[in-house]
Amino acid sequence: MARVVVDVMLKPEILDPQGQAVANALPRLGVTDVSSVRIGRRIEIDFAGEPDLDRAREIADKLLANPVIEDFDIRVVQDAAEVA
Amino acid sequence: MARVVVDVMLKPEILDPQGQAVANALPRLGVTDVSSVRIGRRIEIDFAGEPDLDRAREIADKLLANPVIEDFDIRVVQDAAEVA
Repeated sequence: MARVVVDVMLKPEILDPQGQAVANALPRLGVTDVSSVRIGRRIEIDFAGEPDLDRAREIADKLLANPVIEDFDIRVVQDAAEVA
Repeated sequence: MARVVVDVMLKPEILDPQGQAVANALPRLGVTDVSSVRIGRRIEIDFAGEPDLDRAREIADKLLANPVIEDFDIRVVQDAAEVA
């Protein structure tokens, strides 16, 4: 079994109100040295056989990310302990 | 400037209906070798100075993750191109 991880983040030019809300809450926790917080999605796709990056890219493009406002990044994770 | 990435995922024993919905949609795309899809959050925290992992862990624990149902993982990303 192999796992493919897809990270979907808003494009840098798109406002991220959710991340901004977290950033605004930080001074109340005493944290003042954070310049920016961005919140996106992490999707873990477990393949039954060999991981198929092209297949995963197609899934990400059609199902997981909105290419108008989001960028995504795909990588294979081969950590048996994590996947087990 | 340095970036800390926090990955927040539902604990394995918690049902993930969002991921399940994606998994159920895959056969319509012709993908049949995916055994599981889990959807979580990826949070990028940019520090103005040195990244502070302890600080980031505190932020994740108090603001970003619900420790009852979610696990989180923290790491420093030192990719100047990505952070620029």
